[in-house]
Amino acid sequence: MIKVGLLGFGGLGQAAARVLAPKGEMIWTAVADHKGYAQNKAGLDYDTLIKIYHKQGSVGFLAPDGILSSHSIQDVIKQASVDGYFLALPNLPNTFMADVARQFINSGWRGVLVDALKRTSAVEQLLALQDELQQAGITYLTGCGATPGLLTAAAAIAAQSYAEIHNVTITFGVGIANWEAYRATIREDIAHLPGYDVEKATAMTDVEVEALLNETNGILTLENMEHADDVMLELAGICSRDRVSVGGVVDTRNPKKPLSTNVKVTGRTFEGKISTHTFTLGDETSMAANVCGPAFGYLKAGISLHRRGIYGLFTAAEVMPQFVR
Amino acid sequence: MIKVGLLGFGGLGQAAARVLAPKGEMIWTAVADHKGYAQNKAGLDYDTLIKIYHKQGSVGFLAPDGILSSHSIQDVIKQASVDGYFLALPNLPNTFMADVARQFINSGWRGVLVDALKRTSAVEQLLALQDELQQAGITYLTGCGATPGLLTAAAAIAAQSYAEIHNVTITFGVGIANWEAYRATIREDIAHLPGYDVEKATAMTDVEVEALLNETNGILTLENMEHADDVMLELAGICSRDRVSVGGVVDTRNPKKPLSTNVKVTGRTFEGKISTHTFTLGDETSMAANVCGPAFGYLKAGISLHRRGIYGLFTAAEVMPQFVR
Repeated sequence: MIKVGLLGFGGLGQAAARVLAPKGEMIWTAVADHKGYAQNKAGLDYDTLIKIYHKQGSVGFLAPDGILSSHSIQDVIKQASVDGYFLALPNLPNTFMADVARQFINSGWRGVLVDALKRTSAVEQLLALQDELQQAGITYLTGCGATPGLLTAAAAIAAQSYAEIHNVTITFGVGIANWEAYRATIREDIAHLPGYDVEKATAMTDVEVEALLNETNGILTLENMEHADDVMLELAGICSRDRVSVGGVVDTRNPKKPLSTNVKVTGRTFEGKISTHTFTLGDETSMAANVCGPAFGYLKAGISLHRRGIYGLFTAAEVMPQFVR
Repeated sequence: MIKVGLLGFGGLGQAAARVLAPKGEMIWTAVADHKGYAQNKAGLDYDTLIKIYHKQGSVGFLAPDGILSSHSIQDVIKQASVDGYFLALPNLPNTFMADVARQFINSGWRGVLVDALKRTSAVEQLLALQDELQQAGITYLTGCGATPGLLTAAAAIAAQSYAEIHNVTITFGVGIANWEAYRATIREDIAHLPGYDVEKATAMTDVEVEALLNETNGILTLENMEHADDVMLELAGICSRDRVSVGGVVDTRNPKKPLSTNVKVTGRTFEGKISTHTFTLGDETSMAANVCGPAFGYLKAGISLHRRGIYGLFTAAEVMPQFVR
């Protein structure tokens, strides 16, 4: 039984807890938000924690397993019994995930860390921690959500038919009924729009976000996004990062996807033929399913690596995720 | 530089040699057919060997690096300097690949073996060698062609979005201009037809194969084939083997594929939604590209495992192939 911890209990963390609940191979033993944490070796209950979080604003209010703390991550690392953490934390600020990784390194904790980071620059900060992670006995898998993650891995598989990769094009469609359940994610998307950056998007009030979405009828169209699929495929030796492009359409007012999320891998075969493999996600699969499923699949694969004494930083393009029952 | 050997120099082995030729990370140092072998640490030349094979019937005629031998596999294992072999051997007889694996085990050779086996029962024979392969220091990757192989790996990735997998359906289209370049492969396909089995198909003369193909206008339609994708996905814990089905259409008189090869993975997400992910191969990619590319990608991944001291049997659904430049 793999003991799993969650850092972050916003939209993504809550979805992750729901994905985890029915798994026979994993048990949810710890969770931290920015005001507190909760931990229990015998397992935490999703329904109870969701209620407490919504009513009181932190999992730290859980009795008797919760504790309020202004350094909840540091505390949960020390106190909880966890084999692997899914870092379901906001992507912003851009240095956040690397800062959290450093907390794990400094704590002396050994185990598996998985993130669903999106930005190239955020993954690059983790790459700089390669040696420290190895020495600390931590197996860290980065970019393990939907894109990067599921689609990057599919691209790495698709590339196998070709002698040379010409381009990898990821186009995602996301539909959410209500953007307020994904406040952080939507701000990350806005940061990719022309005229915006991470700082400006983070500083926006909910009213300002709402006003922007009113102008576009709730639709965000994103092109040439800074997405870590590029550095991940480059690191895997598949193609240089400038051959990878990521874009998409987010409908913030409709759970139906505006288009089918897909990755196209175009290359030249050994016979000189140019062709394209396509991996398309079913429209009925949500962002939460396509992020959290892979994240736990990579966490399980990370546990196998860790047990074999294989530490350091890996990306979703290098490791085959394992299916979690 | 990875030193690569090829066992078998029929249609598949020759394509493999062509795929290998431009690779900077791999050097082709050995090849064996059923009449002889050739080996050279500095590398073998594709054009020279193809000519010799077609003119004289065996790579053993290559001067000065070839030797004729009635136990060419045993000899090449002993004489050649090879880090990993691609077993580009006929799938028939069904016990052949396991017999070859036993020759490697008994020889004391240590390294990586990769096959592109198709049948479930052939892969099961290799599974029985798990402990012996581990003790021998051999990292054996089985089912690493197109299907099983590329499509099985894509299915394993696609499965990650789902809490439960309902079915995996692989449908392939193959077009070849002239079946006589793939005598062994076509007999394997015929063995899957109603009223045929492996023995009967193997015993057919070229004239009999030609007569059968005349009846069907050169088209072979295959359903519910015994394909190892089922046992591989079961072993990876993704679904029970009865949920995996493989079928296809082979046009033996037209290089254009009669349909686009694809795998569909249908499952239920954690929210209870039923959906289907689809991975589709570009029509311009040949069977040779889709088999040999992955085979060498898995060989490279196998070398990484072997260097870390990880031995034994693995399938294409468990290991992420690496891109070979």
